[in-house]
Amino acid sequence: MRETGTARIEAFSDGVFAIAATLLVLEIAIPPGSVNLGRELVDAWPSYLAYVTSFLTIGIIWINHHHNMRAIGSFDRTFMFVNLLLLLDVAFIPFPTKLVADYLQKDGERTAVIAYTATLLVMSVLYTVWWRYARSGRRLIAPTVDDAELRAIDRGFAPGLPVYTIVFVLAFISPLASVILTLVLAAFYLPSATLFAER
Amino acid sequence: MRETGTARIEAFSDGVFAIAATLLVLEIAIPPGSVNLGRELVDAWPSYLAYVTSFLTIGIIWINHHHNMRAIGSFDRTFMFVNLLLLLDVAFIPFPTKLVADYLQKDGERTAVIAYTATLLVMSVLYTVWWRYARSGRRLIAPTVDDAELRAIDRGFAPGLPVYTIVFVLAFISPLASVILTLVLAAFYLPSATLFAER
Amino acid sequence: MRETGTARIEAFSDGVFAIAATLLVLEIAIPPGSVNLGRELVDAWPSYLAYVTSFLTIGIIWINHHHNMRAIGSFDRTFMFVNLLLLLDVAFIPFPTKLVADYLQKDGERTAVIAYTATLLVMSVLYTVWWRYARSGRRLIAPTVDDAELRAIDRGFAPGLPVYTIVFVLAFISPLASVILTLVLAAFYLPSATLFAER
Amino acid sequence: MRETGTARIEAFSDGVFAIAATLLVLEIAIPPGSVNLGRELVDAWPSYLAYVTSFLTIGIIWINHHHNMRAIGSFDRTFMFVNLLLLLDVAFIPFPTKLVADYLQKDGERTAVIAYTATLLVMSVLYTVWWRYARSGRRLIAPTVDDAELRAIDRGFAPGLPVYTIVFVLAFISPLASVILTLVLAAFYLPSATLFAER
Repeated sequence: MRETGTARIEAFSDGVFAIAATLLVLEIAIPPGSVNLGRELVDAWPSYLAYVTSFLTIGIIWINHHHNMRAIGSFDRTFMFVNLLLLLDVAFIPFPTKLVADYLQKDGERTAVIAYTATLLVMSVLYTVWWRYARSGRRLIAPTVDDAELRAIDRGFAPGLPVYTIVFVLAFISPLASVILTLVLAAFYLPSATLFAER
Repeated sequence: MRETGTARIEAFSDGVFAIAATLLVLEIAIPPGSVNLGRELVDAWPSYLAYVTSFLTIGIIWINHHHNMRAIGSFDRTFMFVNLLLLLDVAFIPFPTKLVADYLQKDGERTAVIAYTATLLVMSVLYTVWWRYARSGRRLIAPTVDDAELRAIDRGFAPGLPVYTIVFVLAFISPLASVILTLVLAAFYLPSATLFAER
Repeated sequence: MRETGTARIEAFSDGVFAIAATLLVLEIAIPPGSVNLGRELVDAWPSYLAYVTSFLTIGIIWINHHHNMRAIGSFDRTFMFVNLLLLLDVAFIPFPTKLVADYLQKDGERTAVIAYTATLLVMSVLYTVWWRYARSGRRLIAPTVDDAELRAIDRGFAPGLPVYTIVFVLAFISPLASVILTLVLAAFYLPSATLFAER
Repeated sequence: MRETGTARIEAFSDGVFAIAATLLVLEIAIPPGSVNLGRELVDAWPSYLAYVTSFLTIGIIWINHHHNMRAIGSFDRTFMFVNLLLLLDVAFIPFPTKLVADYLQKDGERTAVIAYTATLLVMSVLYTVWWRYARSGRRLIAPTVDDAELRAIDRGFAPGLPVYTIVFVLAFISPLASVILTLVLAAFYLPSATLFAER
């Protein structure tokens, strides 16, 4: 059965994106009674790096999700289930983000960043499946959307999987570089790639 | 007094579903300064199992709630109160989920999984009351919905209570099997049962 | 300046109600590694009592807020500010709820329940101001709402302040009785009082 | 590419505002088993001060954001990205709020309040950029909004940056005075300044 009207999927998805992003702040903690608070705040820079990286990444996924939902005119239960798996992964992001905050530049940083980038890679795979399923044979595409628009969205998706594969592989070599590259991608590359794709 | 327009009940319900699902991640915690993070991450598998099981279960309830609300055209205060009790139970799920994450494969796992499956069973009872109340004598059913659709939703509800009774009973025999069956049901059985019911 | 269209105040208010209610579950905690989990779960009954009482109370306020917003056709900044103070108090409820969960039947229970019922009393005062401000001279009332409906809502508000004054005073005499009365009121009295008022 | 219809930006923004405000309560904690709960509750006043100050500040930003979005008729990705940075800062507020709650009137209070007011100052800068970008050459302004309304919103924005610069500088001299001034501004000055601007 195919239903039209995707407003409530969007509302639930927006909720999960917004809550997951806002819960990230809970990973940053300085114990009360620290003797040198200024020093502790400076030493907590991996927490800020992890927070900003995850917040922007979730934000970028949200902006894209928002944009691509406009092309989708109906949905079925398979699509809702894939969307649910995608949200399951997005809602999981605060956990490896905290690992990065706690372990970066310490023993175990490689493991922490591998867990972090693996979560992002799984997100990228699920998001690609999400789009492939909706787009294949125009299964869930709104009739008003023409093929040029679909190809533009395809081009927006193109960099996602390779890029998150690269940061995942980089995590084994240099964990810090992997996190910084993830941040740079969220802040600069992915938005402009999608912008480029829309021309 | 019967009010029409169920948009705001849906908004509040979506909010509780989305927040309860997203708070689940807070149950997963690895202390900072672990000497073997990789090992700790592997040993934390009950946390991931509990997270995925609860997230999918909440998600499936939400998909069904969403689907069934479409048949409901008006509401009264009794319905809102039952809906509130249902949300009270859904919002409680993160607590027994954390019990499962902390106690599975340890002393007390039976108690933890009984508490977990009892919460799901209560949810199933409340959700059945929710539907029975709205459907009985077409009390809150939209006039555009025909009886065949109502019977289809009935068939979708049919497996819920028996299935959650089974996992509850199974919790006394094999806690791990009970959790895994709950996950399998959320991932495979309940969606297809509902799909089947709609034909 | 008076604006029409109250959809976004409702969205923000719904968000705060839903999040405050769903965060309540975080107050319930059993430490990992307990030797007798069943015993600990039974002994934690003040946590469940506090959870159910606060969840239903927030839910009832929300149902009423929802109902009364239907009579309100426009808003101004004073109204938004009073609404914000009301939400500030509602969002504070998880803190004294945790106090009740931690201290009921222990040293300090009187103080804990006084703090809890004081928070509910302030909520009741702010909510009364909220309605008085909107209703006074039909300042923000939608033109389609007649005076009989306003008097019905007035009757719905009538029990709020006295009732929360009673549970506040009762907290000094018997903390446990005060919490149980608050629960009973949320579950039975307030909904029916409002129902009665609507006839 | 410019899109019209800003409903979903508002929904996501409302979500982050509401969640960030509601998470603030988690910073207030009294350990279970305190021997003198009344005393502990009194001594925790910096927590309440920090809570009320941050809640009202987030609320005021939200009221303004809500008001100003009405003038904005379309959006582009740059605007969404700036909006995302603004939300990143708003969602960060619970962390320095907790620092103020933990350190005010103790060693490290200066550092805590500097971190707090710096977060608010960055918020003010991002919010000004947000408006400047949308307003410049009427880039994203709805055609129905006339120049007088834009100048009124400009006057509403005028006090923001100087005011948050003052509380930031004051944090170095008197941390307590800086927090109290922030509260007073949120409660009295900023709303009336904006009210004044609208005449």
